[in-house]
Amino acid sequence: MRLSRYFLPVSKETPANAEIVSHKLMLRTGMIKQHSAGIYSWLPLGLKVLQKIEAIVREEQNRSGALEVLMPTMQGADLWRESGRYDAYGAEMLRITDRHERDLLFGPTAEEVVTDIFRNHVRSYKELPLNLYNIQWKFRDEVRPRFGVMRGREFLMKDAYSFDLDEAGARDAYNKMFLAYLKTFQRLGLQAVPMRADTGPIGGDLSHEFLVLAPTGESGVFYDAVYDETDWAGMDISFDNNDAARAKRAETVSRIVKAYAATDEIHDEARFNAEVPAERRRTGRGIEVGHIFFFGTKYSAPMNAKVSGPDGKDILVQMGSYGIGVSRLVGAIIEASHDENGIIWPEAVAPFKVGVVSLRAGDEAVDQVCEQAYQALSQAGLDPLYDDTSDRPGAKFATMDLIGVPTQLIVGPKGLANGVVEVKDRKSGSREEVSLESALARLTDKAKA
Amino acid sequence: MRLSRYFLPVSKETPANAEIVSHKLMLRTGMIKQHSAGIYSWLPLGLKVLQKIEAIVREEQNRSGALEVLMPTMQGADLWRESGRYDAYGAEMLRITDRHERDLLFGPTAEEVVTDIFRNHVRSYKELPLNLYNIQWKFRDEVRPRFGVMRGREFLMKDAYSFDLDEAGARDAYNKMFLAYLKTFQRLGLQAVPMRADTGPIGGDLSHEFLVLAPTGESGVFYDAVYDETDWAGMDISFDNNDAARAKRAETVSRIVKAYAATDEIHDEARFNAEVPAERRRTGRGIEVGHIFFFGTKYSAPMNAKVSGPDGKDILVQMGSYGIGVSRLVGAIIEASHDENGIIWPEAVAPFKVGVVSLRAGDEAVDQVCEQAYQALSQAGLDPLYDDTSDRPGAKFATMDLIGVPTQLIVGPKGLANGVVEVKDRKSGSREEVSLESALARLTDKAKA
Repeated sequence: MRLSRYFLPVSKETPANAEIVSHKLMLRTGMIKQHSAGIYSWLPLGLKVLQKIEAIVREEQNRSGALEVLMPTMQGADLWRESGRYDAYGAEMLRITDRHERDLLFGPTAEEVVTDIFRNHVRSYKELPLNLYNIQWKFRDEVRPRFGVMRGREFLMKDAYSFDLDEAGARDAYNKMFLAYLKTFQRLGLQAVPMRADTGPIGGDLSHEFLVLAPTGESGVFYDAVYDETDWAGMDISFDNNDAARAKRAETVSRIVKAYAATDEIHDEARFNAEVPAERRRTGRGIEVGHIFFFGTKYSAPMNAKVSGPDGKDILVQMGSYGIGVSRLVGAIIEASHDENGIIWPEAVAPFKVGVVSLRAGDEAVDQVCEQAYQALSQAGLDPLYDDTSDRPGAKFATMDLIGVPTQLIVGPKGLANGVVEVKDRKSGSREEVSLESALARLTDKAKA
Repeated sequence: MRLSRYFLPVSKETPANAEIVSHKLMLRTGMIKQHSAGIYSWLPLGLKVLQKIEAIVREEQNRSGALEVLMPTMQGADLWRESGRYDAYGAEMLRITDRHERDLLFGPTAEEVVTDIFRNHVRSYKELPLNLYNIQWKFRDEVRPRFGVMRGREFLMKDAYSFDLDEAGARDAYNKMFLAYLKTFQRLGLQAVPMRADTGPIGGDLSHEFLVLAPTGESGVFYDAVYDETDWAGMDISFDNNDAARAKRAETVSRIVKAYAATDEIHDEARFNAEVPAERRRTGRGIEVGHIFFFGTKYSAPMNAKVSGPDGKDILVQMGSYGIGVSRLVGAIIEASHDENGIIWPEAVAPFKVGVVSLRAGDEAVDQVCEQAYQALSQAGLDPLYDDTSDRPGAKFATMDLIGVPTQLIVGPKGLANGVVEVKDRKSGSREEVSLESALARLTDKAKA
């Protein structure tokens, strides 16, 4: 993308009303624009990051065997009356009346809708296990929306729902999501720690939340260093539905959760000190980015979601649900990864992997080298951002660092006179003079890796 | 995808209440599930097609230089009061009150929101031209939703909004979208005819709608055969912003619209007969799949969206908007392309490009060949659907034809005894016996083409 044709309304000013760094940086980089309290547009830079996160979440859901559907944002109140949640949910549910005076609501979650799909279309235990997920906008009418996309009202969530014949099957569905989540977050450049959690308004008797460490997190966290040290993305997990794979998953999850990890709500200092050697104790604050639940027949019973079992008798299905806060992750990644100059994107979600900075647009040699680099990097799939504007070099450097372009190729007339360009690493700030050829070779090699 | 692990709730029964073929087939193939009037879930097969259409629309919007954003579904009423449309819009707008008694609405379109983004972030004519688009769910509270996704209440729309310094610039933005639309629809396997149209509640003085021919279309259409004969997808259009490219676009659009094309609302029989030779007159019915508008300062004036011009004086920007009915296109494609056995997908949007049909699951030789074919076709990127279930062959053939898999590889014990498999073409119904090697070579060659 040529910056002259892009829409990147960056701002030098720190926005009023933004309390946390991700909110400030998302406004300053022109990633989002607020329209009403907790309701945002995603501008090109922000949407690009959101879509990259979404794609990784989708890939790992598909890998786990979950099937993608898309449920509507508008849900009929009758389904929620069946489950008993319509009256129970409270003021966070946005309740709506249509022109025919029928009650609708903007879905904050979709247990009822997915159970309606299931009971209409699935008849036999042979069609199980089944896990349906969607990545869809949700709405919660927060009383005081704040922190930008971290606690907005309209937000993008991945929510999956599993259906199994018995509790053992449902626990395996839970284990699949547990392991898929660890891999998903690590691919996003985050070290997320799974912690046993309360089930809250979703219900059920088994639940974990996944927390990303950041100083602005809403919960205090206490955990064993093993959660920082393990390469979850590299785990070799089979999602097959045979007994050996099931046993392996159960064994892996129970090994993982054996290590201590708790939020301040349920933290047990005595147990923490007893179980975890002092040098392995980690404390800090965490942002919730995922939450998984097993809740048995909480929805299948009132909504009558049954299959015929092997003996021909009807059996209520065992269910779980599994959420990832996709739009919230944009903020969480920034909270976890930034410095005084701006955002430091993990490679996997960087909106542009490489920047090309022209130090003198209009200089024939500089233009020609920039153009050559831009074409080569584009062809290598690196989706470069080429600052072809006539802004001052200082402003250009500041923008590239602010929006967090991981590697920056800097081209100026002085360097070219010596046959070199500069390659800058956003994270370390290190700059190196090399020939154009070796700079391009290094960058395109990285793309292939 | 292995059918045994997929969720494809096909049905033999013709659903009650479905009046048109696309609605019937989308229900019978398990592409969608209705929850309330005009509100659907997209099940895996339907979502796959929707995503393929979305991807092609996105590619062509990006190619035209439009930039993707994502605006919220929930919009504040205040913006609509500024433009004057809040009271004018009528009962199709879903009006909502939040917990703080503030008026919201579920956006039926986004002129106000995008103008709000523009006026907050764009200051100078140097930042023009600008075209921002999004692909987002919209809501229109139709008094009588019907025809499935063709006239639903919650629907997916691509809507683009252009901003220019003067009318000449805005007309060029209009021409860009006009040309991008012709290419988009043809890539989707549709011959869409552009017709001069009324501007309706969007306003403005120049508008075209794009209609796809199908017997169930809502409008009668009358047009010159040239619209059927032209390869719009192959047109060589530059979207550069230089004078030569602009002039070429204007010349191309005026050449295209010179040929007669009109809906029954404005059809002039005398002109049709005078301008179009009898053998080139085409009549039929059409489904609207796109609509483009130039409306000048209709929104920029009340909402005060200005830039400073070359002389430093403020100038109201000239705007246009450009819609494509993304979810509606799924229905329109089926209306235009089906037979008595089911859907005939154009290759570009087929949910699976190839099917592998096992005539005897459990037979060792058949299983082994099916598996080999499935792996080879997957690796070639053909995303095959492998029917590995133990259903009867007749039911398997019926399902593959019903859901419209373009090419089907049929593997049975008798054929294997003779060293052959069958390759079936969904559209023509032709079947041919060939060796597995030559079948795979032919299919994977097609993937490379």
